[in-house]
Amino acid sequence: MRIGELARRTGVPVPSIKYYTREGMLPPGERISPNQVQYAESHIRRLKLIRALTEVGGLSIAAAAEVLAGIDSPGSTPHGMLGTAQAAVSKVAAERGTDEMWECAEREVAELVRRHDWAVRPENPGWRTLVQVVVAYHELDQGELLGLLDRYAQAAGSLAAAELAAFDGVPSLDAQIEGAVLGTVLGDAAMAALRRIAQEDVSRRVRERSQTG
Amino acid sequence: MRIGELARRTGVPVPSIKYYTREGMLPPGERISPNQVQYAESHIRRLKLIRALTEVGGLSIAAAAEVLAGIDSPGSTPHGMLGTAQAAVSKVAAERGTDEMWECAEREVAELVRRHDWAVRPENPGWRTLVQVVVAYHELDQGELLGLLDRYAQAAGSLAAAELAAFDGVPSLDAQIEGAVLGTVLGDAAMAALRRIAQEDVSRRVRERSQTG
Repeated sequence: MRIGELARRTGVPVPSIKYYTREGMLPPGERISPNQVQYAESHIRRLKLIRALTEVGGLSIAAAAEVLAGIDSPGSTPHGMLGTAQAAVSKVAAERGTDEMWECAEREVAELVRRHDWAVRPENPGWRTLVQVVVAYHELDQGELLGLLDRYAQAAGSLAAAELAAFDGVPSLDAQIEGAVLGTVLGDAAMAALRRIAQEDVSRRVRERSQTG
Repeated sequence: MRIGELARRTGVPVPSIKYYTREGMLPPGERISPNQVQYAESHIRRLKLIRALTEVGGLSIAAAAEVLAGIDSPGSTPHGMLGTAQAAVSKVAAERGTDEMWECAEREVAELVRRHDWAVRPENPGWRTLVQVVVAYHELDQGELLGLLDRYAQAAGSLAAAELAAFDGVPSLDAQIEGAVLGTVLGDAAMAALRRIAQEDVSRRVRERSQTG
């Protein structure tokens, strides 16, 4: 198909298609005459993947490009792609707080990881984010929220196991690799969305109870 | 204290402090002489809150400013702030996919909400994000991931209840309002971080099992 049809079928404007091609995120079409380039079904799928990562998953163009380069590299595995996808979705901010507060938060996270019997490297991108969250809770005197971390951890553990089990059912390696990426990026978006919905429900119930009680 | 000390004690550079003041996110200090402005302890706390929302929580300056304006408005309540914080953290992307696919995803989300007996408005910012995630899963043939949504929903429901219970213990209304914001923004960051850690653990265990098995 021509670029116009590719744009129509995916809803992605022609200038964006050209931009993704220049950035190396979308393979170029096949030039079949001096002024005609042909695109295949695989281009449709790739554009959908780009949109899922950037628009639904909230990744920056740079982060999405990194993830796609990982998917395209010949030796990629589902476990390896999980690491690439994790690094791409994790924002690492500058360190804040006093050294003492930071060390205390480091210890608390290490203990949490030990309590849940998790075998992970401290370089895991989630580790550092979690330390920052703990520092922020301490700095802002929200100790009540700290008590919730074990609940979050329990939920995260059970979801990770379910995700990996779902994953085993996927037949091809390519689909497994893409699934590892989408499970991470879209899984975060799904979980955040469901938290919004559940929070409204709980908040409404409590408010109604207090009004009738 | 002077602006230099405020910068030193918070780790926020002087130009950033001035920027936050111009944006209305930080109240101006008190001018005590033609060339001296005095800042209070409350400015330290506000700067920590700004940094928690933007650096740890990943909010844009505009979104953080909106949340802070909500906190500062006289009539704000914890339930109301939850809505403001939710809207700020929710990215709404353009619609994609065919109408048919969109309607199908809408129905699936409505059924999921019904299954979990959630009383929420369809305008809830999570609702639309979730529809987009479902469309993306369908478009990319990741049906296995769809099966996980009920697990995510179950976890989100139990976490929302725990969050609200933690919240009830907070003595002052001001702290409750700030807690609603931080519970939403930093709670998302904490959950995503813990998913990274748990995923690495599960992925490693499975790989080790397959190597020794």
